[in-house]
Amino acid sequence: MSQPFMFEKPIGMRDTLPSYYQTKRRIRDRMENEIGGWGYLPMETPTLEYYDTVGNASAILDQQLFKLLDQQGNTLVLRPDMTAPIARVAASSLNDQAFPLRLTYHTNVFRAQQREGGRPAEFEQMGVELVGDDTASADGEVIALMVAALQEAGLEDFQIAIGHIGYVNALLLDVLEKEERANTLRRFLYEKNYVGFKQHVKSLSLSASEENRLLGLLKLRGGPKTFNEAEELVFNGDAAKALDNLRQLWDVLEGYGVTEHIKLDFNLVMHMSYYTGVVFEGYGSRLGFPLSSGGRYDELLQQFDRPAQATGFGIRLDLLVEALGQTEEQPQQTCILFSKERRKEAIEEAKQQRAQGKRVVLQDIEGVENLDEWSTACREVLHFLGQQKGGGAQ
Amino acid sequence: MSQPFMFEKPIGMRDTLPSYYQTKRRIRDRMENEIGGWGYLPMETPTLEYYDTVGNASAILDQQLFKLLDQQGNTLVLRPDMTAPIARVAASSLNDQAFPLRLTYHTNVFRAQQREGGRPAEFEQMGVELVGDDTASADGEVIALMVAALQEAGLEDFQIAIGHIGYVNALLLDVLEKEERANTLRRFLYEKNYVGFKQHVKSLSLSASEENRLLGLLKLRGGPKTFNEAEELVFNGDAAKALDNLRQLWDVLEGYGVTEHIKLDFNLVMHMSYYTGVVFEGYGSRLGFPLSSGGRYDELLQQFDRPAQATGFGIRLDLLVEALGQTEEQPQQTCILFSKERRKEAIEEAKQQRAQGKRVVLQDIEGVENLDEWSTACREVLHFLGQQKGGGAQ
Repeated sequence: MSQPFMFEKPIGMRDTLPSYYQTKRRIRDRMENEIGGWGYLPMETPTLEYYDTVGNASAILDQQLFKLLDQQGNTLVLRPDMTAPIARVAASSLNDQAFPLRLTYHTNVFRAQQREGGRPAEFEQMGVELVGDDTASADGEVIALMVAALQEAGLEDFQIAIGHIGYVNALLLDVLEKEERANTLRRFLYEKNYVGFKQHVKSLSLSASEENRLLGLLKLRGGPKTFNEAEELVFNGDAAKALDNLRQLWDVLEGYGVTEHIKLDFNLVMHMSYYTGVVFEGYGSRLGFPLSSGGRYDELLQQFDRPAQATGFGIRLDLLVEALGQTEEQPQQTCILFSKERRKEAIEEAKQQRAQGKRVVLQDIEGVENLDEWSTACREVLHFLGQQKGGGAQ
Repeated sequence: MSQPFMFEKPIGMRDTLPSYYQTKRRIRDRMENEIGGWGYLPMETPTLEYYDTVGNASAILDQQLFKLLDQQGNTLVLRPDMTAPIARVAASSLNDQAFPLRLTYHTNVFRAQQREGGRPAEFEQMGVELVGDDTASADGEVIALMVAALQEAGLEDFQIAIGHIGYVNALLLDVLEKEERANTLRRFLYEKNYVGFKQHVKSLSLSASEENRLLGLLKLRGGPKTFNEAEELVFNGDAAKALDNLRQLWDVLEGYGVTEHIKLDFNLVMHMSYYTGVVFEGYGSRLGFPLSSGGRYDELLQQFDRPAQATGFGIRLDLLVEALGQTEEQPQQTCILFSKERRKEAIEEAKQQRAQGKRVVLQDIEGVENLDEWSTACREVLHFLGQQKGGGAQ
């Protein structure tokens, strides 16, 4: 029975030990409280969904899905994200509730990994979905709420990059004309492979002016003055609509007083194919990759027969904890060590201290092998041993 | 895209809508707080484990396991319980921590189901494991903690049935002599199929006295006077040890003042094959089946190379909510309806009310299709519309 295999976990799977759990829990509780204050209602969906419904709609690469067959031969997936399942619920069980719907969740999502030591295959995500509201106020609300949640978590130094799928598409199509040529460049953008983007643009034998417009996209980052630079690169109908949308959003964010955390980033492209408008990513100063992301997805709900515009965000708890750079101490606890004769007395003492909100470990001395090692987890040890009355602190 | 299939979930999988979620959450928080007060440390393990490690150790029927293959060809399972994964962690990552270890979790576990409308295939369980302590004090602590947690959840009318695997085995083997004959009767017991048990006993062509001893097992239920009746049926070494163990446990439970909730039930047999001693189940008065269960498992840890006696319990959140017979109201919330011109004012008002701990929905009027339907979720609606200053309650 004693193979080394016994301790192994599947690739990318991790245990959450008590000290880390408590840090994560404290952060999660604070964010959950903030999100609740904005009127978002918490819900859960199953870990397993049909591949044909949520698996497809989730737009995660097929090789990143954990798939299995049920006993009826249907393909199931472990949910790779929460946006598609919530869209399913908004369109079915919550069909009787008026839009806009404000929903929140915190749950684990799954992405199969190829090798150990890399990304986690299961991670906790907390997020919101605001369903059935197409206004810039809605986009602004979810971004301002993400800012408020991150602040509530204790993150001080962070930035939100905001882009717009409609603008990127308008520019790429205006220059390249064909969707498939645009796709190649879009892939470089969502991989944030800007060297690859430049090389590919140069290989396309475009005119100098066309080439400069595409390369200009990479420089479209910054404050509201970037809007004018963006207009110079492309200003057809779709681009103008996207820019108008972003300008309105900027106004909303000023109303919330959060623009110090905001940076426009017109070359932001997300891996989730269901995004249709404003997209955004949150960065902590310690991390080189986003710890949160979101955007507008106005076409996902119609796949579930209740067409509706929607927007939302997700925050990765593991990356947020990393960005905060915190690890929690063990909790303070009193230990009461007793022998059988005085068990009842020890139980009474524990009961009283717990009623005062203290953590109390109550321990029969016969159950301890090594008292010195055991007591290292105790702030103090009270003894109720032998026949005499009255216990005392060590 | 609009097949009815789009809304379906896999067999036994359920959504947790906001009103139910909030009930469950409140109950879970209260129990978690109680369990924390007893010095149990929270932790999590992955949803997926190797079949060869935890899947095997969990002793859930193979057909109830959700299995899948990873990209390396290993068989994985969705965790069917938490006892085996915690044993794995206690023996590996927590190997440097002295026994006894007190750990707690709340998480979803998985059991594949054959048909819709029956049992859930995924359900939330909250529990504790007390690892490395073989005393009756440890058995008593986890039972007293289960009582305290259920009381904290608001359950008033409930009973804990306590039995002992060692006693049942001693009686069955003493009469039937062969393990396989005992197994057949044990199966009737864990299915609580007492009619089947009786019929099978009668089919065995035993002597009248042997038959009466087996049938007598079914009547061994009640208070401490049952100990004497149990001694009359069998009193060899193993039975005597089990009875001594239970008598000590009864003393401990008297020390905790919880015996009003306790009933001895000598024919209690659990479906988990890893139990080795005291076993117990909790019943609410509204339910015909147990909402919590647990027991001693002294041989599981050695499968993970760190031999240790252990005991623990698990409470099913879904069944507890059912036993409480509660469903939560929607939370009280203020809604602020604004038009663009007065957005900033509306944001300020929302901010102030949220700072006072209120739930506030902030809504752009342009994002609402049907104001009457939308406002049904609001306790009051404040209007910040048009050009004039000052908002008021409707």
